[in-house]
Amino acid sequence: MSELRGPVLVVGAGLLGTSVGLALRARGVDVLLRDVNDENLRTASGLGAGTPARGTPDGVQLVVVAVPPDHLAGAIAEALTTTDAVVTDVGSVKGQPLARVAALVPAEALSRYVGSHPMAGSEQSGPLAASALLFDGRPWAVAPHDGSTPEAATLVTALVEACGATAFSFTPGEHDTAVARTSHVPHVMAALVAGALAEAPAEHLSLSGQGVRDVTRIAAGDPRLWEQILTANSAALTSLLREMRTSLDGVLDALESGSRDTLGEVLGRGVAGTASIPGKHGGPPVPATGVFVGVPDHPGELARLFADVGDIGVNVEDVRIDHDPGRPVGLVELTVADDRAAHLRTALAERGWSVHG
Amino acid sequence: MSELRGPVLVVGAGLLGTSVGLALRARGVDVLLRDVNDENLRTASGLGAGTPARGTPDGVQLVVVAVPPDHLAGAIAEALTTTDAVVTDVGSVKGQPLARVAALVPAEALSRYVGSHPMAGSEQSGPLAASALLFDGRPWAVAPHDGSTPEAATLVTALVEACGATAFSFTPGEHDTAVARTSHVPHVMAALVAGALAEAPAEHLSLSGQGVRDVTRIAAGDPRLWEQILTANSAALTSLLREMRTSLDGVLDALESGSRDTLGEVLGRGVAGTASIPGKHGGPPVPATGVFVGVPDHPGELARLFADVGDIGVNVEDVRIDHDPGRPVGLVELTVADDRAAHLRTALAERGWSVHG
Repeated sequence: MSELRGPVLVVGAGLLGTSVGLALRARGVDVLLRDVNDENLRTASGLGAGTPARGTPDGVQLVVVAVPPDHLAGAIAEALTTTDAVVTDVGSVKGQPLARVAALVPAEALSRYVGSHPMAGSEQSGPLAASALLFDGRPWAVAPHDGSTPEAATLVTALVEACGATAFSFTPGEHDTAVARTSHVPHVMAALVAGALAEAPAEHLSLSGQGVRDVTRIAAGDPRLWEQILTANSAALTSLLREMRTSLDGVLDALESGSRDTLGEVLGRGVAGTASIPGKHGGPPVPATGVFVGVPDHPGELARLFADVGDIGVNVEDVRIDHDPGRPVGLVELTVADDRAAHLRTALAERGWSVHG
Repeated sequence: MSELRGPVLVVGAGLLGTSVGLALRARGVDVLLRDVNDENLRTASGLGAGTPARGTPDGVQLVVVAVPPDHLAGAIAEALTTTDAVVTDVGSVKGQPLARVAALVPAEALSRYVGSHPMAGSEQSGPLAASALLFDGRPWAVAPHDGSTPEAATLVTALVEACGATAFSFTPGEHDTAVARTSHVPHVMAALVAGALAEAPAEHLSLSGQGVRDVTRIAAGDPRLWEQILTANSAALTSLLREMRTSLDGVLDALESGSRDTLGEVLGRGVAGTASIPGKHGGPPVPATGVFVGVPDHPGELARLFADVGDIGVNVEDVRIDHDPGRPVGLVELTVADDRAAHLRTALAERGWSVHG
């Protein structure tokens, strides 16, 4: 039971469901697809994510439920009662659907359910945005519960690995607290900061820099989806947002009383927090430095820059482009390990690039 | 008086002061440098940002004060009383230093002061990170006050243009409200979100995705500098942070009462706010889409990708790399205008790239 042989039934052929299908098909696992939306189903199946399921398919080993949060519990319960398969889902919250499913199905059925949550793909939607690579190298939480069998958890972990992701095991409650902190609180705070921009005079926003763009980026996410996610994780989220309010009150008091020490503590805790986020793929964070390069705005110049960076042999962790279509030179920020930055600067300057930072 | 001829005296040879010196020297303007730190002075002058000033130089046309927030008012007042030049500064807050300078110098001297604030370079520090390109295409606020002369404002605007930046005129109070909203509130909220991560169990942080990294990035900024900035802008900041607290209370109430409508409104206002941030260089925001490309992790593959993108003729607005050193394939996200994304996807796929998104 612990080896993923298939067939796997994917319920919901959106971005996540279709990507699971593509990743499994790439490994030769049989995939059946179901979606209430015929067009999604045709698109996903046309992309090669699996075969549309007819009726209730026999012999399914694993069901992956990939529907919107509001419909999760119903779809999970249906899969548990109409098949003998192990059932997982890919929703953002784990406690609430589990409690709802527990009220709908007998304990035997519930023992075959182990929820999960891949950390991927929240910004786009629909099967057209799907990819077999979507989960590659990403964290994917697996959340067994008191009544689930070890075999079910092992099979869900096998699914995670077949999709190229890294499995992390949590209880449903731990998972929900973790994502409240790393995803839902950041989303609410980003939405509040962005909301204040919506009310600002347009000329004030001409002073927007990269900082506010980064802080508010995730606030562009679909409000209907996020409403469902935040509501489903209400308990964990409320508790952390109350802490945010207490800290915010502390900042307000410090500003009003002119207490620099309190302000310094809050800011220092923030610095510690940014340093505590692990490296993108679970490793220790790599202290990185930005190297800025002026790049003429001609086709081919970016290619020439990366050819030179490749020759120099420095690994680029990330890239950012800041260019104004009306100007002949753009700035490219190459993020590299601290101890490689000086070498990269010197070597690029020797090759005639205008470098700073 | 409105034409920038120099010499320009730069007080404070850190990142901003040295970059101003480099930009002006590149245009042939004479630059004199002063810094309490001899090493900064030698470095900046060695980089070609100007000549170390001896005594009180004669005939200076413009003084640019580029010292930490706490020392601004004293340095501005000194420049106004020891020279006949126009004086500006590049600090993040405009109201408080103006009020302090007004208490230190006579009205005639104050009339030669027009503060300013370039939107650039807050993440790194020191003359070694400086560049003639630092301000290129960036917004730069110019903040004349009731008692300043039009000639002084014109000369400061000429400085902004000589540095390649775009001038935006604000009263000091308007400026401080604008940056409270676009920079200081985002910084405080990012620090609060990051601070909560510092207290989390390490395994919870394994679920961190790109969203929380983006929201918290600016919270890594130097707490000593930010303490000074936030304190100096305490009035405007406090008023906006109180609005944040009210909105946060609204979210808490909505979560506790299960009011989806209220939650939807807050999230919807956030979406509107992200859409109201102008394009990176003041133009209208360009609706952009991410195209994800799987790139083998060999030197030269990024160069090959950008060569293909250049041939295809699609303008890349931004780039992001998400690669795991332990895996053979990384994901590169190319941000391009919405109406070019489909063409880029198809053309890259035809050239053999693995594309999604």
